[in-house]
Amino acid sequence: MEKYLITGFSGFVCRHFLEYLEKNEKKSYILGLDIRDHEYKFESFRFLTFEFLKVDLLDRIKVEDVLTKYKPDYLLHLASFSSVAYSWKEPVFSFQNNTNIFLNLLDAIRKLGLSTRILSIGSSEEYGNVDIKDLPLKESHPLNPISPYSVARVSQEMLSRVYSKSYGLDIIMTRSFNHIGPYQTDAFAVPSIIKQLVLIKEKGLKGELLTGDLEIVRDFTDVRDIVSAYYLLLTRAESGSIYNVCSGKGISLKQIAEKLCEILDVDITFKTDNSLIRPNDLKIIIGLNKKLCSDHKWEPVYSIERSLNDIIDYFKSAYRGNKF
Amino acid sequence: MEKYLITGFSGFVCRHFLEYLEKNEKKSYILGLDIRDHEYKFESFRFLTFEFLKVDLLDRIKVEDVLTKYKPDYLLHLASFSSVAYSWKEPVFSFQNNTNIFLNLLDAIRKLGLSTRILSIGSSEEYGNVDIKDLPLKESHPLNPISPYSVARVSQEMLSRVYSKSYGLDIIMTRSFNHIGPYQTDAFAVPSIIKQLVLIKEKGLKGELLTGDLEIVRDFTDVRDIVSAYYLLLTRAESGSIYNVCSGKGISLKQIAEKLCEILDVDITFKTDNSLIRPNDLKIIIGLNKKLCSDHKWEPVYSIERSLNDIIDYFKSAYRGNKF
Repeated sequence: MEKYLITGFSGFVCRHFLEYLEKNEKKSYILGLDIRDHEYKFESFRFLTFEFLKVDLLDRIKVEDVLTKYKPDYLLHLASFSSVAYSWKEPVFSFQNNTNIFLNLLDAIRKLGLSTRILSIGSSEEYGNVDIKDLPLKESHPLNPISPYSVARVSQEMLSRVYSKSYGLDIIMTRSFNHIGPYQTDAFAVPSIIKQLVLIKEKGLKGELLTGDLEIVRDFTDVRDIVSAYYLLLTRAESGSIYNVCSGKGISLKQIAEKLCEILDVDITFKTDNSLIRPNDLKIIIGLNKKLCSDHKWEPVYSIERSLNDIIDYFKSAYRGNKF
Repeated sequence: MEKYLITGFSGFVCRHFLEYLEKNEKKSYILGLDIRDHEYKFESFRFLTFEFLKVDLLDRIKVEDVLTKYKPDYLLHLASFSSVAYSWKEPVFSFQNNTNIFLNLLDAIRKLGLSTRILSIGSSEEYGNVDIKDLPLKESHPLNPISPYSVARVSQEMLSRVYSKSYGLDIIMTRSFNHIGPYQTDAFAVPSIIKQLVLIKEKGLKGELLTGDLEIVRDFTDVRDIVSAYYLLLTRAESGSIYNVCSGKGISLKQIAEKLCEILDVDITFKTDNSLIRPNDLKIIIGLNKKLCSDHKWEPVYSIERSLNDIIDYFKSAYRGNKF
């Protein structure tokens, strides 16, 4: 039975990764680490055995203790302060809780001489603002981070390369594009819009909705497709390689908002709230997923409509269960 | 009278910067910060007024306190764990004591809304291994860090760019090539060889000297030329700009060793100690200093022979004063 150490255990990507393992009957032993409590019901998983530790990954000694004791086969490093908006407000905490936490894990594995295979999750934000002519972005495209968050992610990737090439650690790196899916918090744009629209629908309201810049175009991938890619990369990819994880398709937030109004049958005017416009926000990001598709026979199976419907259902059920 | 905050106050570059200010009669108020004690005699400086605080720059609260109280016109950020060799042994401490300390300073300045002009010192190591055809290296050459130290320096530069472009901080960045000069510790290659040769000379010994890889070629610049460049950049350069600080000439450690034997008139065989060979060490680095020379009328005035002679004198006097 394979042993996974998963950081960011209480987050929404981990939840979907666990569901992926369960659905595919991958018997596994999971040590979950998070700074927050989790909300899983362990007894509902038939194929997974769990242990959970509340750990601040900035605590090097604790990180080393955990790795010494546990010696995982796989490290799926999902822990991240992954909001670009937050990174503008608290650049130091963002940097520490992206780059330093990762370095603590890497260095503990190096010092202990473990053969743990590591998946280092990076971000499409690493590419920075790009020319339309360079879309969709290949993995070979130069990195040009323009926010504190993206600097932290590029730093993480550079550390991964050094630890892979020179210390010989077994690391696969991703540049993951925007995720969407049920359970994502409304700190992100799409779930935030959906949550508000569901509220409007359920309460039978009309009127206007304040949003950030709806013109921005992103490559949204359903989190369930993302975690299947993570599983493939973690178990099959060549050590030291880097992969875009993305749908390969761009869609604007405006198009998404329109689709949502149609699905929910609500009549809403969208109005830009300047306080939600972020400095230097990237205008358009679309990735090329050819490497991932051809190396590992991966392809995204969730259409944008399916994703949006599932997120709507999630928020409806949360609303009706008095969860917001 | 202008107020300088200088980090890495007890180090050898700061000593030369202070001597530069003194020699050029630049009346200044200096707040020195270092984690170590200093060895200056403040009364020997006629034009400088000093205050010194022993501070760990990883202590954010303390860093904010100092900046709140002091509000410097200039921040000369010399503090660094600047040894590549050390970074291979202690990558976490190297990273924290390069990138995180700098981020703490930057972010305190941002939060306090100070107009402090900042000199962010980077390194030629940021370029990584390069093709001979790309020498001498221009500032536009892509960065490709291949050691923990150089990753930390690139991270520092990326943070500088974001704080400059998006938060509007007043930052100049350097990529400083190898420094040599009196007072440098023998943790570095050139002073280490010189110290040993002086010992051999003074004791009248013969024999062999263990060294690292003498074939590597570096662009060595006298620290006294470096600090005059720092003064020009700090007081004149355009905000947000990046400069190579270097002599523009390459010389191998072997050639330096031969020059030293000639100057000292010692007969020594050099032998490679494999334990001193660093993983992935850069083979050859030479920078182009055209931008610095043409923008600011800077040029290096210390020849390599002059530098070596002065370092020899420094070690001779240290030896005769029973300092080693």
